[in-house]
Amino acid sequence: MKTANGINLTMLCDFYELTMGNGYWKAGYQDRITYFDVFFRNVPDEGGYAIAAGLEQIVDYVQNLHFTEEDIAYLRGRGMFDEEFLQSLRDFRFHGDIWAVPEGTPIFPGEPVITVRAPAIEAQLLETYMLLEFNHQSLIATKASRICRAAEGRTVLEFGSRRAQGIAGAVTGARAAFIGGCAGTACTVSDQIYGVPAAGTMAHSWVQMFSSEYEAFEHYCKTYPTNAVLLVDTYDTLRSGVPNAIKAFNKILKPLGITKCGIRLDSGDMAYLTRKARDMLDKAGWTECKITVSNSLDERLIRDLIRQGAKIDSFGVGERLITSKSSPVFGGVYKLCAVEDENGNRIPKIKISENIGKITNPDFKKLYRFYDRETGQAEADYICLREEVVDDSKPLTICDPMARWKTKTMENYRAVELQVPIFLKGELVYELPTLPEIKAYCAAQMETLWPEVKRFENPHEHYVDLSEQLMALKDEMLHNAGKRRSGETEK
Amino acid sequence: MKTANGINLTMLCDFYELTMGNGYWKAGYQDRITYFDVFFRNVPDEGGYAIAAGLEQIVDYVQNLHFTEEDIAYLRGRGMFDEEFLQSLRDFRFHGDIWAVPEGTPIFPGEPVITVRAPAIEAQLLETYMLLEFNHQSLIATKASRICRAAEGRTVLEFGSRRAQGIAGAVTGARAAFIGGCAGTACTVSDQIYGVPAAGTMAHSWVQMFSSEYEAFEHYCKTYPTNAVLLVDTYDTLRSGVPNAIKAFNKILKPLGITKCGIRLDSGDMAYLTRKARDMLDKAGWTECKITVSNSLDERLIRDLIRQGAKIDSFGVGERLITSKSSPVFGGVYKLCAVEDENGNRIPKIKISENIGKITNPDFKKLYRFYDRETGQAEADYICLREEVVDDSKPLTICDPMARWKTKTMENYRAVELQVPIFLKGELVYELPTLPEIKAYCAAQMETLWPEVKRFENPHEHYVDLSEQLMALKDEMLHNAGKRRSGETEK
Repeated sequence: MKTANGINLTMLCDFYELTMGNGYWKAGYQDRITYFDVFFRNVPDEGGYAIAAGLEQIVDYVQNLHFTEEDIAYLRGRGMFDEEFLQSLRDFRFHGDIWAVPEGTPIFPGEPVITVRAPAIEAQLLETYMLLEFNHQSLIATKASRICRAAEGRTVLEFGSRRAQGIAGAVTGARAAFIGGCAGTACTVSDQIYGVPAAGTMAHSWVQMFSSEYEAFEHYCKTYPTNAVLLVDTYDTLRSGVPNAIKAFNKILKPLGITKCGIRLDSGDMAYLTRKARDMLDKAGWTECKITVSNSLDERLIRDLIRQGAKIDSFGVGERLITSKSSPVFGGVYKLCAVEDENGNRIPKIKISENIGKITNPDFKKLYRFYDRETGQAEADYICLREEVVDDSKPLTICDPMARWKTKTMENYRAVELQVPIFLKGELVYELPTLPEIKAYCAAQMETLWPEVKRFENPHEHYVDLSEQLMALKDEMLHNAGKRRSGETEK
Repeated sequence: MKTANGINLTMLCDFYELTMGNGYWKAGYQDRITYFDVFFRNVPDEGGYAIAAGLEQIVDYVQNLHFTEEDIAYLRGRGMFDEEFLQSLRDFRFHGDIWAVPEGTPIFPGEPVITVRAPAIEAQLLETYMLLEFNHQSLIATKASRICRAAEGRTVLEFGSRRAQGIAGAVTGARAAFIGGCAGTACTVSDQIYGVPAAGTMAHSWVQMFSSEYEAFEHYCKTYPTNAVLLVDTYDTLRSGVPNAIKAFNKILKPLGITKCGIRLDSGDMAYLTRKARDMLDKAGWTECKITVSNSLDERLIRDLIRQGAKIDSFGVGERLITSKSSPVFGGVYKLCAVEDENGNRIPKIKISENIGKITNPDFKKLYRFYDRETGQAEADYICLREEVVDDSKPLTICDPMARWKTKTMENYRAVELQVPIFLKGELVYELPTLPEIKAYCAAQMETLWPEVKRFENPHEHYVDLSEQLMALKDEMLHNAGKRRSGETEK
């Protein structure tokens, strides 16, 4: 095998997942029940929200967890693993529980987006791939959401495969872009396997292949009369491209009674050129001809072009979307939050850090979103211990965990649990929505966010608050950790 | 299928490759022989060189080009393609020629890195995946090269799978990082399939799983006495982590006569903490204990840490390498440079642009690198027409195509052709080097570059010059294109 295609994804794990797994085995800890949260700390592009994505691929991965004989032989060859541990990998599968927010949900820093409860060895193994898939697709869905909002209802197409960071960068990247708001992709296989509508017409090479630009356009219109989108910037957009396009439309489409067609610009100043091209098309009677542009676009340039009166119907966005160029990392982490002892008692765990923002929220938790019953607006998110229940018929005072003097009393609100069960005792209990359903759910959820949260620059921070019980537990654990630091609990 | 794993990579193409393919078929152009160049215009991070990578995966892809019945059925369902064209896809394979620079070669803007000569329909189809693989792996190999140079001989490990942009982002990303200079990876499957040495020890969750940090360390040392690298920053690096590590080394390793071990820091100020930790370890007699650090590293931070006297043996680099965070796009393009007419006469093609830097070099070309015979230094690269031969026993005056008054006369130089044949008439004629061979070749080639070209900031530009013949052809074509723009050659 030469490409990263058709690999056993179970082996796409950091090597330490396996050395720890073997270590848990030797310490007799392999069946110790553990709780891990996936959460993230910073929104890409300093935005106000992110879009969760990648769950479908994570489900697929968990269902297919297994080690082949070749995998086991490879590990044996590394000379670090107990033979008994290696033998146990033959029957390895997932026996635990997973809860997650549905794909397409707007999410915020610090929230448990996915929670895993499973024997130590199983929960640990999931870490790398689960984060990889969640981080990658959430990154692209979030970027797509920003770019599509900038387009203010105009069509946005994902065009970036050739600049993607590897195969899945393109393929699941196109899927995530569709969830975030794109209407389609240039990537054929993403249409074939996920149903992301793939479209495309011609490259400059098509225009260059023929003896003249006009000949290239005429051939194209004859071949695809109902889908004739002509690339007009190979030689000179206004002096050659647009006039030749109009000539070809007149010659081939007009006699067929076809009025819908398009041109695409891939270079030059798009505000100026599209205004001029629109004029020329309209004057020639091609008022239904759509204009697509596709050069170095992102949310900032699209916003500026619209502001400057560019006449654009559709944006083809490439490298700046498919790599989230201006902010190419989604920093989701996977942190231990509790362990059960031999008697099944849950012991909360916390990760301390000198950086206060990096201290984790301990224990097995639940995530609520509070919506105003009248306006439907999302007012705040609320993290509490798993056993706590919010009664949304009663007022609730919440406070900012980083600035506890800031409080807010919720009234006339609807409390919705965001995490839903995905796996219980190793069995899939979640009916995966279709991709159009995910996209529609995302769009509807985005409507519930305050416009201030959706601002590109310096957005308002959506409140993510902790319950009093959770806050008290965290305080106590930080206090005790201070003691442990000084050695009091050391053996 | 839910994940982008195990897909038919032939379908990983922009949809327009197929609409153009069908169009060439209908126009009777499908067998027209075309020449395409892969080249790039800008070095990531404004550096002075890039490292070519990804060829092995491209070879694998070309050898496996095919359409399944399902692929053809999917395309038929799109209702845009001629049935005859669809039938022809059954027997689709590559019949053309491909030349490329070997993986690991330092490359520069504007150079033909890969050249394809093939029937139009075949050459066109390769575009998307070939660019994707070349762009992604060259991006990561280039970033790894920068980071490893900053480390000045210290070990650099690739740790970024969880933040990679999809499956191949991690898996072939680790391969590319190895080519660029990394000693290994955390990604298990990259070791299994490519032989990139995978390593890893423990996460914070291991330390938290046990009732104390010391207990966690003791267990680990018992399990892996010859590979005991302990993560010391879970609670407090200097007050708890390092003392507990020393205690565990003394208790478990010392009686076994083991002197090699390690600690890893993943947070805090690494200049200060590593100096203190080094002191504590040395005073306790653990002078062979290696110190690894792994938090938000890239070439700039590594350079600064070394400058500040940090005591670091090994760097684990994550998201900033695996996504090339500061410059996450490698902009390789695939441009038509010639077409053969019905009689097999080669007609050069050029892509015009208002941006002078975007004008392509026409025709079927050859790429030389000139090395000084005495010092071995790479003095310049030289692009000429395929039929031209450089006789390096004679002086040669070259000039900068963008500043033609700048000339340089080469003497006592060795001219090496950089592109080698990979496929001829559809058959693989290239013996793929092993990954360690590619890495060693890359390191040796990097030695031939001037230090000024390798500078991080504002590097010297390596000369890439055009032959007089090529320059004359380009001038003539630009002149004629001016005429075509004014409509003289239009039908």
